[in-house]
Amino acid sequence: MTDIYRIRAAAARARGRVRRTPLLSSAALDARAGRRVWVKAECLQVTGSFKARGAWAAVSAMETAALARGVLAFSSGNHAQGVAWAAAAHGAPAVILMPRDAPGVKIEGTRALGAEVVLYDRLTEDRAALGAAIAEARGMTLIPPYDHPEVIAGQGTTGLEIAADAAEAGIDAAEVLVCCGGGGLASGIALALSAEAPTFRVRTAEPEGFDDMARSLASGGWETNAAPTGSICDAILTPRPGEMTFPILQDLAGAGLAVSDEEALRAMSLAFAHLHVVLEPGGAVALAAALFRGDDLAAGDVIAVASGGNVEARLFVEAIMRYPA
Amino acid sequence: MTDIYRIRAAAARARGRVRRTPLLSSAALDARAGRRVWVKAECLQVTGSFKARGAWAAVSAMETAALARGVLAFSSGNHAQGVAWAAAAHGAPAVILMPRDAPGVKIEGTRALGAEVVLYDRLTEDRAALGAAIAEARGMTLIPPYDHPEVIAGQGTTGLEIAADAAEAGIDAAEVLVCCGGGGLASGIALALSAEAPTFRVRTAEPEGFDDMARSLASGGWETNAAPTGSICDAILTPRPGEMTFPILQDLAGAGLAVSDEEALRAMSLAFAHLHVVLEPGGAVALAAALFRGDDLAAGDVIAVASGGNVEARLFVEAIMRYPA
Repeated sequence: MTDIYRIRAAAARARGRVRRTPLLSSAALDARAGRRVWVKAECLQVTGSFKARGAWAAVSAMETAALARGVLAFSSGNHAQGVAWAAAAHGAPAVILMPRDAPGVKIEGTRALGAEVVLYDRLTEDRAALGAAIAEARGMTLIPPYDHPEVIAGQGTTGLEIAADAAEAGIDAAEVLVCCGGGGLASGIALALSAEAPTFRVRTAEPEGFDDMARSLASGGWETNAAPTGSICDAILTPRPGEMTFPILQDLAGAGLAVSDEEALRAMSLAFAHLHVVLEPGGAVALAAALFRGDDLAAGDVIAVASGGNVEARLFVEAIMRYPA
Repeated sequence: MTDIYRIRAAAARARGRVRRTPLLSSAALDARAGRRVWVKAECLQVTGSFKARGAWAAVSAMETAALARGVLAFSSGNHAQGVAWAAAAHGAPAVILMPRDAPGVKIEGTRALGAEVVLYDRLTEDRAALGAAIAEARGMTLIPPYDHPEVIAGQGTTGLEIAADAAEAGIDAAEVLVCCGGGGLASGIALALSAEAPTFRVRTAEPEGFDDMARSLASGGWETNAAPTGSICDAILTPRPGEMTFPILQDLAGAGLAVSDEEALRAMSLAFAHLHVVLEPGGAVALAAALFRGDDLAAGDVIAVASGGNVEARLFVEAIMRYPA
């Protein structure tokens, strides 16, 4: 199980390797939202997303002999880059299974980090079975994207930084909006905040039509998305909440939020103009919820975790040209 | 005069108001440059550029009675926003003289911060005379963009952060490339580093054709640019080195560097793809010099100060579409 001690241990192992990202804000975003909006800029993290945190936590916890055999991950891109980076830094080989329709920028980024990339078809192939077969054949350790105690602990280090930076900024209480696929980042942050900033509450943010976590939190059981693909938010399209992450969020999170692809693009454009950071659609849904779902939030400050920035130039251009800030 | 004590005092007054920006890096940029490249991301600063530092230092040093009469500045945009922000935070009125051809995003940004904007013609009107007339008529204090001991001290706080973060990252010596208009940022950083990291050397970076500082450093006297405009690097098109800043850089800086507009656009595209930050052309010339003028740099680490990110969407699109990373 993941608890605050495991999160603090992950933070200690990550010192000097995982980046401490800033908490950004701008008067223009505050004015638009009618409240203070803070953005935890994980798009500035090593490998361009928070996934480097969980990957580092998991890989740095491995024994030497297992590291020599290597690690394996399946991912649409950001977890892939995180695991490839953490493995390379530990001198461990890495095999990454990626869906054939993952953004080219993520496939190339993973290869550039030295990993062996194996492509599969998201609709016809079973990535879990594929991964298990390779892991067994080569003695590799599977690093799952969210259902893993060290991965959740690593993502939870984001919450430690939010608590510290919020205290320094004089934020007494806040809704903390977190982009949510399987729920690793949201559950890790929720655990960290329950110990370090108990007046803060995590709210998951998902793309409309892929809001399995919001519906699961509402129904009390694991709900599944109708389709595997169909949103530009490729980074956070998971079929259902994680086995380990959902119970944590049931315990600690408020109701889930969902935004449209258009709202995610608008948030990208506003982050470009007013914060000067690059967000990918899946990394912008929390900021979109902060800006466009104000009625569903408690009064007061909101902190949006901008979870990643690995976006194709073409899609970024669409965001900033079609929706001028 | 500006010295390390004045810079430290400016840093103390700025705590909690001016943002401590991160020192970013990426394996992809290192590979391209053939050395470790670090980017001090001042595009993430309050108001989108380092100018908030100098403005805060100058305004926070003013007496109460003078604050009540207000402040005045002339600026193509980034200094304007910095002064408008610092004035508003001190409850002081602000008048900003801006050239009519300044980017719309900067004119709007300045107005949004509550300042009164007065537009002038860069080719036919004398901004210094205009500013002096308004300052006298309304009893306002002029905050010059670089030739002012507190402004230089404020910009120098960037150097304190570079020295501290470089020490933590294990950087023993480095060339520190600084985007240079009048030289306030470069001279402030040079002063801070000479006290806190004396093995680091400042090198100015300018647009080709507007390299008055590089030519002045080479000749030993104040050289002037042939034309007032004609580069996309609007933020750093000053006619000649500052009276106060040039002697500091003569004493402390290495030879100046210059890059083309195309190289600035390429650096913007690489920063988009690999660092996930938004740079404006004038804020990208130091990174461009780090990436494309390696032969003119001493071996070893290079730190590029990315001084601003206030760029029109259209120009940013040109950079990332025409020069894919």
